[in-house]
Amino acid sequence: MHRTAAVILASLLTSAGASTQSSPPSQPPGFVNTLMPQPANLSTQEGRLTLAPSFAAAADRYRDARLDAAIARSLNRLSVRTGISFSTSPSANGTSSALTISVDGPGEALQSVDEDESYSLDVSSSGARLQAATVVGAMRGLETLQQLVQSDATGYFLPAVSIHDTPRFRWRGLMIDCGRHFIPVEVIRRTIDGMAAVKLNVFHWHLTEDQGFRIESRAFPKLTGLGSDGLFYTQEQAREVVAYARERGIRVVPEFDMPGHTSSWFVGYPDLASAPGPFLIEREFGVFDPVMDPTRESTYKFLDAFIAEMAAIFPDRFMHIGGDENNGVEWKANSHIQAFMREHKLQNTAALQNYFNQRLLKILEKHGKHMIGWDEILTPDLPKDIVVQSWRGFDSLAAGAKAGYSSILSAGYYLNLMSTAAEHYRVDPLPETNRLTPEQQARILGGEACMWMEQTTPRDIDSRIWPRTAAIAERLWSPRDVNNVDDMYRRLSVESLRLEALGLTHISQEAVSLRQLAGSEEIGPLQVLASVLEPVTFHERAHMQHPNQLTPLNQIVDALPPDPPSRHNFELLVRAYLQNPATQLQEGTKLTSEFKAWITAEPGVLRLMAGSPTLALAQARAEQLTKLGTVGIEAISYLSSGLPAAAGWKAENLAVLDEAEKPQALVRFTVIKPLRDLVNAVPESSSR
Amino acid sequence: MHRTAAVILASLLTSAGASTQSSPPSQPPGFVNTLMPQPANLSTQEGRLTLAPSFAAAADRYRDARLDAAIARSLNRLSVRTGISFSTSPSANGTSSALTISVDGPGEALQSVDEDESYSLDVSSSGARLQAATVVGAMRGLETLQQLVQSDATGYFLPAVSIHDTPRFRWRGLMIDCGRHFIPVEVIRRTIDGMAAVKLNVFHWHLTEDQGFRIESRAFPKLTGLGSDGLFYTQEQAREVVAYARERGIRVVPEFDMPGHTSSWFVGYPDLASAPGPFLIEREFGVFDPVMDPTRESTYKFLDAFIAEMAAIFPDRFMHIGGDENNGVEWKANSHIQAFMREHKLQNTAALQNYFNQRLLKILEKHGKHMIGWDEILTPDLPKDIVVQSWRGFDSLAAGAKAGYSSILSAGYYLNLMSTAAEHYRVDPLPETNRLTPEQQARILGGEACMWMEQTTPRDIDSRIWPRTAAIAERLWSPRDVNNVDDMYRRLSVESLRLEALGLTHISQEAVSLRQLAGSEEIGPLQVLASVLEPVTFHERAHMQHPNQLTPLNQIVDALPPDPPSRHNFELLVRAYLQNPATQLQEGTKLTSEFKAWITAEPGVLRLMAGSPTLALAQARAEQLTKLGTVGIEAISYLSSGLPAAAGWKAENLAVLDEAEKPQALVRFTVIKPLRDLVNAVPESSSR
Repeated sequence: MHRTAAVILASLLTSAGASTQSSPPSQPPGFVNTLMPQPANLSTQEGRLTLAPSFAAAADRYRDARLDAAIARSLNRLSVRTGISFSTSPSANGTSSALTISVDGPGEALQSVDEDESYSLDVSSSGARLQAATVVGAMRGLETLQQLVQSDATGYFLPAVSIHDTPRFRWRGLMIDCGRHFIPVEVIRRTIDGMAAVKLNVFHWHLTEDQGFRIESRAFPKLTGLGSDGLFYTQEQAREVVAYARERGIRVVPEFDMPGHTSSWFVGYPDLASAPGPFLIEREFGVFDPVMDPTRESTYKFLDAFIAEMAAIFPDRFMHIGGDENNGVEWKANSHIQAFMREHKLQNTAALQNYFNQRLLKILEKHGKHMIGWDEILTPDLPKDIVVQSWRGFDSLAAGAKAGYSSILSAGYYLNLMSTAAEHYRVDPLPETNRLTPEQQARILGGEACMWMEQTTPRDIDSRIWPRTAAIAERLWSPRDVNNVDDMYRRLSVESLRLEALGLTHISQEAVSLRQLAGSEEIGPLQVLASVLEPVTFHERAHMQHPNQLTPLNQIVDALPPDPPSRHNFELLVRAYLQNPATQLQEGTKLTSEFKAWITAEPGVLRLMAGSPTLALAQARAEQLTKLGTVGIEAISYLSSGLPAAAGWKAENLAVLDEAEKPQALVRFTVIKPLRDLVNAVPESSSR
Repeated sequence: MHRTAAVILASLLTSAGASTQSSPPSQPPGFVNTLMPQPANLSTQEGRLTLAPSFAAAADRYRDARLDAAIARSLNRLSVRTGISFSTSPSANGTSSALTISVDGPGEALQSVDEDESYSLDVSSSGARLQAATVVGAMRGLETLQQLVQSDATGYFLPAVSIHDTPRFRWRGLMIDCGRHFIPVEVIRRTIDGMAAVKLNVFHWHLTEDQGFRIESRAFPKLTGLGSDGLFYTQEQAREVVAYARERGIRVVPEFDMPGHTSSWFVGYPDLASAPGPFLIEREFGVFDPVMDPTRESTYKFLDAFIAEMAAIFPDRFMHIGGDENNGVEWKANSHIQAFMREHKLQNTAALQNYFNQRLLKILEKHGKHMIGWDEILTPDLPKDIVVQSWRGFDSLAAGAKAGYSSILSAGYYLNLMSTAAEHYRVDPLPETNRLTPEQQARILGGEACMWMEQTTPRDIDSRIWPRTAAIAERLWSPRDVNNVDDMYRRLSVESLRLEALGLTHISQEAVSLRQLAGSEEIGPLQVLASVLEPVTFHERAHMQHPNQLTPLNQIVDALPPDPPSRHNFELLVRAYLQNPATQLQEGTKLTSEFKAWITAEPGVLRLMAGSPTLALAQARAEQLTKLGTVGIEAISYLSSGLPAAAGWKAENLAVLDEAEKPQALVRFTVIKPLRDLVNAVPESSSR
């Protein structure tokens, strides 16, 4: 009987990987650096500050309600972590306190991209001092403080460090598409908690889509009344989210995607559209024809009133107008619109969209907002205070920067694609090889992770966002040369637990979903299988399943996190073993026991599948796991003994891996590449 | 390496227990009865109704928004469960639908204890029909429908049944004390979902306590402004909870505890009190002196305005005024109050409280409310339309009934005491041996489970409420003779998974908390230990730890559910084995492998404890588990072989069990009694 493979692997790596993976050589042996994102400057000393009941915090310079609340939250988290009951009210007098917080002032009344987020944190055995120019800077430092807490048999402590930290990029966001699947407010709140923990500073709230209009409009009640299935945020809830984010130093940028992606608007207000209607909430996913009619003054009158209303709810200087994926079909089919284009000498639908954007821009300006939109909005006649969000890549970013436009990168940060943390981590908004001038470089403001929701529901969203987004957050905050993937994964596994402490369900959801699928609390064997599976890519799933908005997302794929810890841990173990199979006996034994666990799991998994038709869709995967285990055991047996395999063994076993690698049942194995390395390393006799 | 003991045991019992434990003999072999609560009348037939995409639901008689929403929720749950995308809009025309819902009318405009909750449900291979007099009755039937869903290799189906169901008691409640620890609204919401699933119908919301005032008053803003630490429900949130509950056929009875338990009121309004003040939010738990001054007219003026405000938020006919645990100290110490008592010929503080209640009653009546209060309010001069909630027991209930008062039982249903589900299940508000007349019996309206929150936070509340409350819910709904404890536990384990599907965290929280305690995802050995531990009783913990409101509740005890599945499963296994140890080879093997798992866990647990001072508080428990495993292995060895143990073996091993049984580190073992049975069954040589 077995624990899950993920757990086995984590256990193996405690001894196998930790010593070579932990901290840079400059740090004293007692200090384990688990900071994420890594600070710009860190030096360590010998010594520690013990966390005892007397530990208290005081702001000795500027103080306000937001800072006090942040300090109280921070102390409360320390209490829960350590079991020590700290006074959670910051004291006015810093003399007797272990933690002194010195803040120059409140920072911007309305946080912008120019907010000073830098801070310094000095911990010695006699106390800690956090210094920052702004309250937001102090909040960033308090998150670092949380990440510094360590424990050993003697108790909980902060190691002696000196940190001077400032972000590399000023715009570090997470977008959530609440249009395609609605996300309840409490999930938004805990997501914001996670963002604050990894020092993200923009929550980009994608509020309207073909599949749903998610924000209450009192001026136009049919937007949600007919376009939301009753699933939307009230204005009060939206204001609460804005306030909640501001309390954590996070801006909220709302997106109202137009002129395309607007089917849900037209259900209640068909006169906005370029085709006659009637319209329905779109249930399929993709690019659709419905698009606003940019030739009618009534459209702009509507948008003026709507944006006035939204501007009162969302105080951020930026408003996102989408602008993406307008296929122009309805514009071309509408003779009135065609006549308008001729009349205004608009050569093509892109030119007409530019006309629309120009009109929209004036409305935004009237209501005090800068425009941000996707790649497609960028045309030379837009003013330089707009921001372009690139889903196309760095080249598009660079072209914008050269033309004088500010931009942020999202290409490479699409969480829905089911890429690995390492893949996201390697994407840099400003690669070392860029050929931009310093002035142009400064126009690249940062980036945003994007959680598109076609294949995700509130049940599994946490595991799609976390912990991978922490790797993206580090890319956007930390210096460019913080780029060691192994070290990132080592720290990511610690950060993942810290994020769980905030109430995020990215770890726990897997077992919850597997229990539901199995209809049983007895899911041990299923967890073994699940630990070496992950979702196929977004595009593979779209192709294989064609899910729409009404498709129940309740298969094994929906239980599994992308890029599970087992993937990297297994790779490390195989890498360590292959350094010298004949002498790496411990690793060999561990691999063999892991492979045996795979084989042993099959009967139990098949038993569960027999009672669960949904789970049974993945039956072939259970059978393949036994084959993979067999391949592994044979490979280890040859490699450890040094004896060659019979001719043909390699081809035969690589074929097993090739077969298992194919996407099937919407899932793929995480262990194929290291298994292939093992098989390829086996010497083979030249004759059969 | 091992799965958790709980899981091992569940697996063992699949074969060991299921066949003897499942359904009454009258049911066909294909039908597994997992209904909870059990219906009043159930008959089964051969056949099944397959759940296919064509499955749809239609209300063929009365229909309203509340019924439509309930049907849509029900179909949505079926979709998630089965992976089949049903149309979630009830169709108007029932002819082609597999499920026809026939409802006579809306039921009461404001749901009362007299609401008709009965329903009939007939399933055959050609379709299902749900009939009810009211929408609430239909909702009860829809929950039964959810519980009927089964699956096998061929797919999901409803077995052919005929159910006629009606509750035994009309008042079936759950009280949550949101005063001592505040509970966020989203937790309240998911708790209400759980209540609806097991057919509870009253959410009793304990909103004020010495330790916190939790409901916004606009008339008296300092109640929450100074008395809540900022943790309270806005009026809007409270209204949303009331609406959410009503949508699920659940009444909301608010409690404003007075004249005692009122410290938090007095922080902002000291003039209400019988002592001069100033007052602070009480941080300790217990019975305290602060009490309202019942002699001043200003007190009643305040309460009149306050209750008017609350009556507008909480539409239920009942308002709970607490009335408990007034120690009278401040009344005795206040000369003005003493003079008042003499003047009004009030002999003692109980008489003064009765005077207060009479005044309060008039205020409640003015605002259209009936009074409900704890035992202490019952005095002969109160009118007969009040309800008494008994925390003292059946005798108090019977006395009230004889005196003409209606009452509900809570003694025996205190979830915070950490009793077993079986203990709660055996408590009957109207035991067979009662000597009440039918008229008196009718005055016993039902009961309420009570979640007092001294030792519970939002993190662990789900595991304190669920699944045990499902057993109490069955006691209150099902006929008295539904009382087989083994069968209750069998169905409770299924219901527990169904409750998890609603978003409750009572199962998943254990692993989350253990990971946090261990600071690691690698918690396999810790889970083995945890699976045979549970919290000590409430009073033991109060005595051992003296927690107050500010104590972090983050020890291993806070991770553990009371009465975990392992307890009953282990008992069953030992019972089966002891029927004939020499021939029950399978059970013997299973027990031995379980005991070995305990022993093997210790080193891993101690490794985790070395890095976690909080976890290390339970170190002795890890060492004891090895000893318990050893006792078990030796006992099995003697019993299976039939060889006697040496003289003294029994005493020695019983001493080990006695030692392990002592409460320590706030936890206790769940397996001591069956282990004692094993040891006692071992034959011993008469000489050493």
